[in-house]
Amino acid sequence: MNRTVYLDNAATSWPKPPSTIDAIVEFNRSIGANPGRSGHSRSVDAGRTLIDAREAAAKLFGAPNALGVVFTKNVTEALNIVILGLLKDGGHAVTTSMEHNSVMRPLNAARARGADFSTAPCSETGELDPGDIASLIRPDTRLIVMTHASNVTGTIMPLAEVASIARERGIPLCIDAAQTAGVIPIGMEAMDIGLLAFTGHKSLYGPQGTGGLVLGEGYGRMIEPLMYGGTGSRSEFEVQPDFLPDKFESGTPNTIGIAGLGAGIDFIERTGMDAIRAHEKDLTARLLDGLGSIDGVRIFGPCDPERQTAVVSFILEGMSPSELALALDQDYGIMARSGLHCAPSAHRTIGTFPEGTIRLSPGYFTTREDIEYTVEAVAALAVRKKTGAKT
Amino acid sequence: MNRTVYLDNAATSWPKPPSTIDAIVEFNRSIGANPGRSGHSRSVDAGRTLIDAREAAAKLFGAPNALGVVFTKNVTEALNIVILGLLKDGGHAVTTSMEHNSVMRPLNAARARGADFSTAPCSETGELDPGDIASLIRPDTRLIVMTHASNVTGTIMPLAEVASIARERGIPLCIDAAQTAGVIPIGMEAMDIGLLAFTGHKSLYGPQGTGGLVLGEGYGRMIEPLMYGGTGSRSEFEVQPDFLPDKFESGTPNTIGIAGLGAGIDFIERTGMDAIRAHEKDLTARLLDGLGSIDGVRIFGPCDPERQTAVVSFILEGMSPSELALALDQDYGIMARSGLHCAPSAHRTIGTFPEGTIRLSPGYFTTREDIEYTVEAVAALAVRKKTGAKT
Repeated sequence: MNRTVYLDNAATSWPKPPSTIDAIVEFNRSIGANPGRSGHSRSVDAGRTLIDAREAAAKLFGAPNALGVVFTKNVTEALNIVILGLLKDGGHAVTTSMEHNSVMRPLNAARARGADFSTAPCSETGELDPGDIASLIRPDTRLIVMTHASNVTGTIMPLAEVASIARERGIPLCIDAAQTAGVIPIGMEAMDIGLLAFTGHKSLYGPQGTGGLVLGEGYGRMIEPLMYGGTGSRSEFEVQPDFLPDKFESGTPNTIGIAGLGAGIDFIERTGMDAIRAHEKDLTARLLDGLGSIDGVRIFGPCDPERQTAVVSFILEGMSPSELALALDQDYGIMARSGLHCAPSAHRTIGTFPEGTIRLSPGYFTTREDIEYTVEAVAALAVRKKTGAKT
Repeated sequence: MNRTVYLDNAATSWPKPPSTIDAIVEFNRSIGANPGRSGHSRSVDAGRTLIDAREAAAKLFGAPNALGVVFTKNVTEALNIVILGLLKDGGHAVTTSMEHNSVMRPLNAARARGADFSTAPCSETGELDPGDIASLIRPDTRLIVMTHASNVTGTIMPLAEVASIARERGIPLCIDAAQTAGVIPIGMEAMDIGLLAFTGHKSLYGPQGTGGLVLGEGYGRMIEPLMYGGTGSRSEFEVQPDFLPDKFESGTPNTIGIAGLGAGIDFIERTGMDAIRAHEKDLTARLLDGLGSIDGVRIFGPCDPERQTAVVSFILEGMSPSELALALDQDYGIMARSGLHCAPSAHRTIGTFPEGTIRLSPGYFTTREDIEYTVEAVAALAVRKKTGAKT
């Protein structure tokens, strides 16, 4: 077995476009300096790298202002800034039952400090009725925080409807776009989304170690930073500057990684988000069709490429998800992720807690042949299991 | 003017050893996956990358346990974990007057939330009398936090003496090793240093976006995390795991950057910390001698390569630090950093607030010729200034 098929793009995309790594290598070769700290030419070039990436991200998300793009180490940091920042001295948040632990763990930490939150139940396919968000809003609700698409089932949430509820009730809405940034169009200004947390290393094709929080006008003032330190600005003050993005960007940023992220966003612009989404829908449809025709396979989620991202979670009768993942890896070179995907609440919602599922997540560089090969592998393992045959 | 001389290694080291970038490129090419999340072979390889880097860092710092090495995005995050974590509900800290804003801003944030801190005054050369730390300790003191060497003057602090005071009084000591990790030997276990914050992109020769906190035995339990989220461990729980390093490492880590950091630490092991320090002392001596003989130059700090890192701060009479830095950059291709270096307290201590100084910081890849050229450039600018000549 020499073939390998990487189907773990919902964890991190691989391969990256060559331009991502080229940008990293080139930043190291010809810039290398710290941005915004020193006045010399290379430090200015490093600052320009950050500004370019902020502008690219702001454009991609339809954000009003590139200075509202704060770079973080991952989407988790961005979500913590919002959740712990807005609920620091109490208050209430509304979320859904399909969230990742990057939302649930900070919410539980906020609760332990005196805040509270309510969870809108989703259906067995992970789908949300926006009315359930509306009905949980209380007078002390300070935040609605919700994934844009589930990392377990791919289910796309009714963002426009929830944004409209948030706007009507005057409550900040924060979207966890970890699974959708770069694939599903988002217009922050057009849709009235105040806060968006993203990761750089999934469908934005940047390296691990990158992510960010995009803040709409006025949101920066509401939130206290998670950490404090040197920003290269207002160095004469021993308190944090209050302007964006510096308020939330303490210490040396991951400029070399952000150079790669900028190249990743540029790859999306050049390729076209429509073309990326169309290819991923095609692969998802083939995966759903192929797996769906295998005896003993049960697929979770909407089972409709229009209503989900390129994420397919399933179980195979008589074989635990981890056993199946191991067999796919060792016997076929197919890399998938089994278990709870850091989202126990989502698995409870779809009825697969605590065993979890096996998740296949193709990406833009996955081919139809990869999918065909994978479906054949699962079919062969299903037969092997049924007949009790050994390899 | 085609020559360039990079003398801003105290901000970030450049160039990196080729092996650092090779490790980054190779991680992307042959691993690329998320560590500890999925069970497939490449995810396991990514996990191994992290473990190797933890072990290398633990060995370098003489730490008791590689699991106590927590990776962060920079030293600032590590210092915030300690300062905001230990002072979250009050208490008192002791620090020095030579600290960077990565220490001062979190301390001030903690004070705004009800904690307090006291500052031991340092001399005009940035030197600390350890007795001044001892005399500021109060019954409610929970932390001594101190830089190992000033980023403004290079002054090396009396670490062994302060560690001994901390041990005697039973108070956690946290060292900011941003300027010393990889150059000045540190033995955490041998010296009884409980907490050490480091940056990866300075003298550890890793990329920007890397850093960490090393926790001695028992310290993990004392400190509440700064952020919460998926850790790939105990996914069935919606609360943060309480073991190291997961407790403080939420979300996807910068694995590709940490691959580079591991290679950087390996470079130090292969080169020898003694050899690195000897070369940097030689360059510092030459810089001190050369600059010291220029009319109108005033150097700050110990002016003794044995008592400082490879950082030389000075001013030139009649020329502001920023004016001098600009002339060095534009006329000679020499990259330096002028101003307050995110350390207003240190500049107040040495008497250079608010104008600051110009700082030259050579690194292991700087040559004697680079230093000679730089001294000649400063000398030429001094003459030009004196005679009023224009280029």
